[in-house]
Amino acid sequence: MATQSVLTPQGEDFPRWYQDVVAKAEMADNGPVRGTMVIRPYGYAIWERMQAAIDARIKEAGAQNAYFPLFIPQSYLSREAEHVEGFSPELAIVTHAGGEELSEPIVVRPTSETVIGEFMAKWIQSYRDLPLLLNQWANVVRWELRPRLFLRSSEFLWQEGHTAHATYEDAAKYALKIHTDVYNDFLEQVLAVPTYVGIKPPSERFAGAINSMTCEGMMRDGKALQMATSHELGQNFAKAFDIFFQNEAGQAALCHTTSWGASTRLVGGLIMAHGDDNGLVVPPRLAPIQVIVIAVRDESEVNDACARIAASLKGVGVRAQVDANRGSFGRRLTDWEIKGVPLRIEVGPRDLSSGQVTMVRRDSGEKSLVVLDAVGETVLVVLESIQATLFEAARDRRDENTHDVANVDEALEAAQNGFARIAWREVEGPGEQRLKSEAITVRCLMRADGSMPVDDAEEDLVCIVAKSY
Amino acid sequence: MATQSVLTPQGEDFPRWYQDVVAKAEMADNGPVRGTMVIRPYGYAIWERMQAAIDARIKEAGAQNAYFPLFIPQSYLSREAEHVEGFSPELAIVTHAGGEELSEPIVVRPTSETVIGEFMAKWIQSYRDLPLLLNQWANVVRWELRPRLFLRSSEFLWQEGHTAHATYEDAAKYALKIHTDVYNDFLEQVLAVPTYVGIKPPSERFAGAINSMTCEGMMRDGKALQMATSHELGQNFAKAFDIFFQNEAGQAALCHTTSWGASTRLVGGLIMAHGDDNGLVVPPRLAPIQVIVIAVRDESEVNDACARIAASLKGVGVRAQVDANRGSFGRRLTDWEIKGVPLRIEVGPRDLSSGQVTMVRRDSGEKSLVVLDAVGETVLVVLESIQATLFEAARDRRDENTHDVANVDEALEAAQNGFARIAWREVEGPGEQRLKSEAITVRCLMRADGSMPVDDAEEDLVCIVAKSY
Repeated sequence: MATQSVLTPQGEDFPRWYQDVVAKAEMADNGPVRGTMVIRPYGYAIWERMQAAIDARIKEAGAQNAYFPLFIPQSYLSREAEHVEGFSPELAIVTHAGGEELSEPIVVRPTSETVIGEFMAKWIQSYRDLPLLLNQWANVVRWELRPRLFLRSSEFLWQEGHTAHATYEDAAKYALKIHTDVYNDFLEQVLAVPTYVGIKPPSERFAGAINSMTCEGMMRDGKALQMATSHELGQNFAKAFDIFFQNEAGQAALCHTTSWGASTRLVGGLIMAHGDDNGLVVPPRLAPIQVIVIAVRDESEVNDACARIAASLKGVGVRAQVDANRGSFGRRLTDWEIKGVPLRIEVGPRDLSSGQVTMVRRDSGEKSLVVLDAVGETVLVVLESIQATLFEAARDRRDENTHDVANVDEALEAAQNGFARIAWREVEGPGEQRLKSEAITVRCLMRADGSMPVDDAEEDLVCIVAKSY
Repeated sequence: MATQSVLTPQGEDFPRWYQDVVAKAEMADNGPVRGTMVIRPYGYAIWERMQAAIDARIKEAGAQNAYFPLFIPQSYLSREAEHVEGFSPELAIVTHAGGEELSEPIVVRPTSETVIGEFMAKWIQSYRDLPLLLNQWANVVRWELRPRLFLRSSEFLWQEGHTAHATYEDAAKYALKIHTDVYNDFLEQVLAVPTYVGIKPPSERFAGAINSMTCEGMMRDGKALQMATSHELGQNFAKAFDIFFQNEAGQAALCHTTSWGASTRLVGGLIMAHGDDNGLVVPPRLAPIQVIVIAVRDESEVNDACARIAASLKGVGVRAQVDANRGSFGRRLTDWEIKGVPLRIEVGPRDLSSGQVTMVRRDSGEKSLVVLDAVGETVLVVLESIQATLFEAARDRRDENTHDVANVDEALEAAQNGFARIAWREVEGPGEQRLKSEAITVRCLMRADGSMPVDDAEEDLVCIVAKSY
């Protein structure tokens, strides 16, 4: 295969394959400060499209974007005991600014519950101000000892939603709505990644939450990646930050808050959920470049045809681009494969003379001749077919590699190459500890029919057990 | 007037008027750490629309978005002597992270020339890789001793473009293109702010630049605000970061670089360029809400009509919203005036029975009755009329308050309430010092016909002299 010399095969060394793809697809580089990352234009274009798709869904769910400061007084974090305990080891601290030592050290935000809690308390007066539905797109910093580009970086980009509600029920309902209508819908419809949607076991909850929901995707090596999480924070942060409201009876009452986030980790998830030995495979609805049009020979007639084809594709709403590079044809094909562009159209003088071009699908490698007049129409159909095929293939892989097991021993074995599904009562307590000692964790709890439980106290829950990123 | 109790009049105390508008229009709040800012949903919605308009122009100019780290090794800044000298007093420094003291302190980026320079050096091999045209949307930190929301905040949001070119001419041409086709076009077409477009005098150049271009807008108190800047960096950063390329002759050559930025200061500029005693005035092309539809009475027939009108306006691409609040009608009118929504449609039972609604322009306060069937069509025309009127009014104010003067004494006097335009040779040297001692600066140098000079060595340049933000 053309690309075997370029990328380490997945089966040989999956982590190295990942590194190779990130580098050769020009997705990202390591930054100069430990664990930081430079997101290169192609990687950033993918992130921008993720942002747009998630942002539209967040707005549809009624939340408004805002922006809160990067710098948080250290004292804020200490106000919620579990929260500060969870984040303390990962904090970056500013001690000097404006040429002087600061009287109180400043934390670079690892997340913004605390500072947003402070302002919710200020802005919320009465039940009429509720629900308060906020979201921000921002960078956050959590110091990483074992950084990996996109998956674990000391600085990452994300959106974090923060909401305040009058009742527990309204908070829980909204967090579930975000989890379902924003995250899971985006993951299925755009990223083409089917996930197990459930709640975290108590040991894996967000620091300060009373309930954490997660979408757990299966990567091509059988490990799990947490793609997005939504948290019910109960009244923990409301107590810590005095987020009161006057209820309809005129009494002061504490709010119930939620938070929910998805980050540039999703780019790592995209790479590992769909990628193959030839590189990245980007689902068409996400792809910044859906169709790359390449001249087989550098002849003016061929180049003109390429430009016309790309223009007509753009005319029907397809994100098409002409490869204007004049380097080796084979090398360019390899490069576009590594970048995972869903469809390639090769334009050669011979095909052209018979009014045709060659179309190559990235997912299957399938080639077909398409009559020039039918290119637009065909491309639209094939892009949707690729989108559906990627989702189905990912779902089949997930289902085939999820093994129903009866006890922790079997779970340990099954989790070596995939997910184990097991009754939660078999795992809770000592079983969870045993799994952890082998770097295997409970990814989520679900009902037996796969639906979302209200909390971990429900009977007969099952759990997904796996190695993870 | 209804709002006199709400806002301090501009004529009484302009800085307080500004603070009042920022607070009452719910644009922003002070953050808990000195000089930081919380951008509230309405302020952020305006910034998002600025971002979208600028981003589209940047992409049209061929630059690609990327993302570079927040954290920069302190040593990087020292490599370009003028740069480190310019920024040192404003830096925030991280000394501890992950529970340990760092071996090398980390700077929170005040701007990204240095870290981007490092990666340009890595990515650029030959002339085929040039020009390299990058942009990033990010937060930056410059410690402020006298912070003011949007205008001077210790953390602000911006875009910073960074490009590398094979020749001085290509770099200069691209910086000019950005300045003209991105910034000035955005300012005129969207923000409706006419500016003086010129170059900075040597004393006001960006730290490390060989030439800085600026767009200087006039605020309603006659002071200047620098709305956007574009810098030719020559080979200064290329030398400091070894940004070499192999030219067509196969020899190693140094690149020429540029950088250019616009920030959340623009929100402050919007407020001060168009605002009046009743609050903010947002140009229609920028406005997140272009039309607010208000029921004069809370009756189901009226409410239904409001919903229908808003829906039909959305149908023709207008950003319309129904005011669903049921509080005091007068108070709501005042609130929407303060927020500067360009058009208000009042729907009352009496008008409705004769098939009409009342339309009120925010810019002139002019009221008119519009037949229901003609609302969509009329609104589209009136929004464009408001856009044009705001630009013309701002241009007239700028022209009326720009005084041609012959010497520094006259410039000092004219700059008390507006701009002075004066021959640069009258000011250069001791004159500039004298102006500075009165907190007046040379905002930009232009040719006598108002066009952009190549550099400050051109003969017969004029300059704009003013107080500024």
